[in-house]
Amino acid sequence: MSTSNLEAIFNPRSIAIVGVSTKATRGQLGGNNYLDAMISCGFRGPLYPVNPKGGEVRGLTVYPSVGDIPGPVDYVVSAIPASGALQLTKDCAAKGVKAIHFFTSGFSELGRPEGIKLEKDVLAIAREHGIRVVGPNCMGVYVPSSGVSFLSDLCNESGQVGIICQSGGNAIYVLREAANRGVRFSKAVSYGNASDVNECDLMEYMADDPDTGIIMAYIEGVKDAPRFKKALQRAASRKPVIVLKVGVTESGARAAASHTGSLSGADRVWDGLLQQVNAVRTSTIEEWIDMAVTFTFFSEPVGRRVALLGLGGGATVLAGDEATKEGLVIPAFPDEMRRRTAALLGSEAGTIINNPMDLSAEAWNVGYYPVLKVFDEYKDVDLSIVHLSLGLIARPPDTHREIWDKLVDDIVRARKDFRKPIVVVIQMATSPDHYCWMLEAREKLYRAGIAVYNSIRHASRSGTRLLRYYERKNASGR
Amino acid sequence: MSTSNLEAIFNPRSIAIVGVSTKATRGQLGGNNYLDAMISCGFRGPLYPVNPKGGEVRGLTVYPSVGDIPGPVDYVVSAIPASGALQLTKDCAAKGVKAIHFFTSGFSELGRPEGIKLEKDVLAIAREHGIRVVGPNCMGVYVPSSGVSFLSDLCNESGQVGIICQSGGNAIYVLREAANRGVRFSKAVSYGNASDVNECDLMEYMADDPDTGIIMAYIEGVKDAPRFKKALQRAASRKPVIVLKVGVTESGARAAASHTGSLSGADRVWDGLLQQVNAVRTSTIEEWIDMAVTFTFFSEPVGRRVALLGLGGGATVLAGDEATKEGLVIPAFPDEMRRRTAALLGSEAGTIINNPMDLSAEAWNVGYYPVLKVFDEYKDVDLSIVHLSLGLIARPPDTHREIWDKLVDDIVRARKDFRKPIVVVIQMATSPDHYCWMLEAREKLYRAGIAVYNSIRHASRSGTRLLRYYERKNASGR
Repeated sequence: MSTSNLEAIFNPRSIAIVGVSTKATRGQLGGNNYLDAMISCGFRGPLYPVNPKGGEVRGLTVYPSVGDIPGPVDYVVSAIPASGALQLTKDCAAKGVKAIHFFTSGFSELGRPEGIKLEKDVLAIAREHGIRVVGPNCMGVYVPSSGVSFLSDLCNESGQVGIICQSGGNAIYVLREAANRGVRFSKAVSYGNASDVNECDLMEYMADDPDTGIIMAYIEGVKDAPRFKKALQRAASRKPVIVLKVGVTESGARAAASHTGSLSGADRVWDGLLQQVNAVRTSTIEEWIDMAVTFTFFSEPVGRRVALLGLGGGATVLAGDEATKEGLVIPAFPDEMRRRTAALLGSEAGTIINNPMDLSAEAWNVGYYPVLKVFDEYKDVDLSIVHLSLGLIARPPDTHREIWDKLVDDIVRARKDFRKPIVVVIQMATSPDHYCWMLEAREKLYRAGIAVYNSIRHASRSGTRLLRYYERKNASGR
Repeated sequence: MSTSNLEAIFNPRSIAIVGVSTKATRGQLGGNNYLDAMISCGFRGPLYPVNPKGGEVRGLTVYPSVGDIPGPVDYVVSAIPASGALQLTKDCAAKGVKAIHFFTSGFSELGRPEGIKLEKDVLAIAREHGIRVVGPNCMGVYVPSSGVSFLSDLCNESGQVGIICQSGGNAIYVLREAANRGVRFSKAVSYGNASDVNECDLMEYMADDPDTGIIMAYIEGVKDAPRFKKALQRAASRKPVIVLKVGVTESGARAAASHTGSLSGADRVWDGLLQQVNAVRTSTIEEWIDMAVTFTFFSEPVGRRVALLGLGGGATVLAGDEATKEGLVIPAFPDEMRRRTAALLGSEAGTIINNPMDLSAEAWNVGYYPVLKVFDEYKDVDLSIVHLSLGLIARPPDTHREIWDKLVDDIVRARKDFRKPIVVVIQMATSPDHYCWMLEAREKLYRAGIAVYNSIRHASRSGTRLLRYYERKNASGR
């Protein structure tokens, strides 16, 4: 199969959702979830709910079968039990449908002959009629620019990150949490058992996709290793590819086999391949998101010499340790620069005037702007990292919100006025108020073009990975 | 100095707080914070606010000086500028005060002769009159059973964990966040510059303290290495000691020197010492809290063979990988046990019926109780770990709270009815609703005696550390 006919998946003109109920379905994750998601995401073409009983749902006519739909149908979402999958595929073939997404599970992932056979039979009919199949056993497709989505609460703004993700749950988490940190998506596909559309198709497609500038791939296993290698190589030569390869331990591989029928492959083979093509390998889902944040906000490398600024003496000692352990350089400030900073504050009591710097007691009055200005003008650092460590400050945002807001506003202003990048770490929330403040602060910061991380460790590790990516890219002359 | 006269610090009969303002001081972290904290914590003896201007605050008479206080004063908190510290110490000596805590900063930590001299002069007067000094440059003392506190929002319940922590901010974070996970404290001391009361005094005291069963120590540096080694050895032979040694890199050590005037010492020397005495070394503040949680909820070792249960196929693959990488064993379930679990569910579609196990689609109806019962009866696992991965589930607690609550109630019931321990991981919050639900779920769980962690990685690493602690303890015959 070529990747050209994936257009019906990413940009369908009409969608039928099979397995929609006209009764309340709260707590059920079936067809109605897909109907709600497409409506929330602003799908502009016709939406056709399907249920043998007919009726009406969300103001739309429910059709008894795909064949009863009056207009042409590009894309079908199946949320019916596996037992109906074969007949549905036949109906879709007769209707001229171009792609079916099977949310439906109960196929080869069960590891039993009948499930494997059913998956093969569905695919045979689909292939015969040129129908692309997404899944089965997956959340499916999210393309905010097309109004295609699999959950109502996902962000409707578009961006440059494409996600290839066997797991629906992990895709959901990334779409929610990376969006909280300013990452926006071109498209995301959770493709489950990968009976037809698989990691190779998607990697080939995204390599060429002008809407996708960064690729995130969560891989449990691949079915065609040579083709995947070639697709990955091509994609990674054109844009950053961030890989989370899982199933790397015996128990993880066992779960992957049962989850999506995947064979995980040896971990060190993956390590070699990913290094060879300069794909960025991450080892946790948090790091995977961190690199999407990093490539979103940094389109070129920055040096590793950092000025570290934050609140709290102990937090500052920890920050120095963590940044250094993760490969950043925190150069001591020369006396003149220390004097200049101290002069801003009026007093040094309760502060650490060096690098890393702690302005706990004094920062409230002076703010961060003048200090970040001194950092910006200092020739021996490449960027600043500011940490806002919520739970360790005696005056938390619960009761001193205006002070915390001022610090964020200062950072936003500094980002606009100064030359060097600023990165922010917001960490150690211990109350709902902290958490809510963090979400609001993150949004102010990312809308100003600032990358936000959850710890100094994560920010530093991401920075080191960014540098290594560009070093290798430049060394290979690409 | 001996440790016996630390009683005036941990159990004072009366407290004077010097530097209390009768005006509103929102945003200021001075004497009024201490006054509020002691009142919130329920201090039962007389509280004497002190300010040269006199007046009244929170219904209490403000005395112009310590000498003007009518009754005896055991313990004084100084929140005045460093320039008044010497006179205050003289006043305290004349009054017969037993201990002074200097929240006041501007002493040796500035690294300048005048600050160093002031600290020495204060100490000389204090020593001459048998006054113990906490600090300067620190948050001070928290003893919930005595009603002594340094912040109004700390937990008033007492427990068995004692904290030795140079850094006030880090102490605050731990007191807030570990409390959110069910850890309760006997006492905590942030001792800053350690001019008098230092890590040796506190380690010696807590080794013998019947109220302290677990010791957490955050160390930037020690001033008397042989004495500290001896104190640590004695403490660690009697109870678990969890150490977070910071200032282990050049930049961290620079910050520590400026923060509390500490010399950090070589990292590998610390590694050797901590291994030798079987103190548990952690490398981040999160791990430090994790081990306090672990020792609080596990007073004896548990095996490393785990049944892993959770929601979400991808999350389950990751869980298997992370637990295995951190040294736990996730044995595959035999066919008979898989059949038994499948029979509970009615269908296997959308699930992973093995170890690790994913019950996404079916768990909502069946619940966790019957599955945990099967785990409990299976001879080849020592405990169960359940992960509740909030942000990756399409039906989040925002809209399906009753389902999530049922899962937690099932775990609580299983903990009461079954023999083997259950550990819970709540992770991947992506909204304020998730975060609030997490805090409530944590409390239900820890009140049922269940340890809660923030990731499979953290839970597994903590379990491995617990096992190693007991292996070494048993090997040494202690």
